[in-house]
Amino acid sequence: MRGRFIVLDGLDGCGKSTQMQHLSHWLPASGLMPPGARLIGTREPGGTELGRAVRELLLQTSRERAPAPTAELLLYAADRAQHVETLIRPALERGDWVLSDRFSGSTMAYQGYGRGLDRRLIEQLEAIATTGLQPDLTLWLSLPLAQSIQRREGSRQDRIEAEGQAFLGRVADGFAAVARQRGWSAVAADGTVEQVSRSLEQLLQDRFG
Amino acid sequence: MRGRFIVLDGLDGCGKSTQMQHLSHWLPASGLMPPGARLIGTREPGGTELGRAVRELLLQTSRERAPAPTAELLLYAADRAQHVETLIRPALERGDWVLSDRFSGSTMAYQGYGRGLDRRLIEQLEAIATTGLQPDLTLWLSLPLAQSIQRREGSRQDRIEAEGQAFLGRVADGFAAVARQRGWSAVAADGTVEQVSRSLEQLLQDRFG
Repeated sequence: MRGRFIVLDGLDGCGKSTQMQHLSHWLPASGLMPPGARLIGTREPGGTELGRAVRELLLQTSRERAPAPTAELLLYAADRAQHVETLIRPALERGDWVLSDRFSGSTMAYQGYGRGLDRRLIEQLEAIATTGLQPDLTLWLSLPLAQSIQRREGSRQDRIEAEGQAFLGRVADGFAAVARQRGWSAVAADGTVEQVSRSLEQLLQDRFG
Repeated sequence: MRGRFIVLDGLDGCGKSTQMQHLSHWLPASGLMPPGARLIGTREPGGTELGRAVRELLLQTSRERAPAPTAELLLYAADRAQHVETLIRPALERGDWVLSDRFSGSTMAYQGYGRGLDRRLIEQLEAIATTGLQPDLTLWLSLPLAQSIQRREGSRQDRIEAEGQAFLGRVADGFAAVARQRGWSAVAADGTVEQVSRSLEQLLQDRFG
């Protein structure tokens, strides 16, 4: 039987890493996975050897080699294509389950909504890179950042901090839009670690139990 | 006035490098370029700082990081997008002329025809990476390799050499097909260096004189 593809997504700082660790222990012991199926934990960008090299390229932003917007989207897409083609799809076909820290929705939220890059192009590249593969379940750790920024707008900020907050506000709105469009399952990320874990477990039970 | 974009293309070993050098001296002295316009010589892949890093990635084919076909096409497209966006288009808009050793036709000939990767995908990525920019003139150094391989097929070869020749034959046929589809100007590359240079000069005169 084909495995299941589960994605954990959300803003930086939403607690994804902690919950990734938790679920990578909890899921295999949950009884939800068929006997013999393994859980493969992975991430984007950088889930493969090639992807890690691409990720370094994207982070090494010396002025001469800083990628132009289209080049940047193509590099993220190359990372994703390699991830899908060499890791995710073969695992699912073996019957293993895959749990990924971020997937294509993050590109839409950060590059599309946050940075204002061409959303139609992002969708086109997503279709190319994933060859249509979609998660069986995306768990979205939702942080009410947009409101928290609004509440702070009265106070004085330097320009860079303000820009950073405006950017994060757009990304937070982007995640909300993408979650709505794609039917993601939301968990409020401002609870305790244990509350968030229990909510994620419940959603997994509901979907795969 | 917008500059001109000229591409020199053809199989490895067709004499492109020698003719690139020749034209980079001849063109600025030819009287074809408007006063004040400079000639920018460049290449694909690797015409930019980012592109050189991507090219290294593509050449470092350790087994773990060898790119899957779609990832490879996306990396070539990223190199091309960076090249067009940061080097070629700004130069043309300044009024400078650009002479490139290979462009998108090479991807179609090598990856599409030679390796049998999805030609519709290659065209789609070309449209994304170039945002519609096409050369004003492509000079194709045509080598009759397909025939030369056919003539040698009777003799004994080891499997790898035979595969290499079959691959090059497909690429040569691919260049012929792309040249026909795109209206490239062909020059027989089996003449002397001087003959080939004179033919290239004549084509440039005919087009821009």
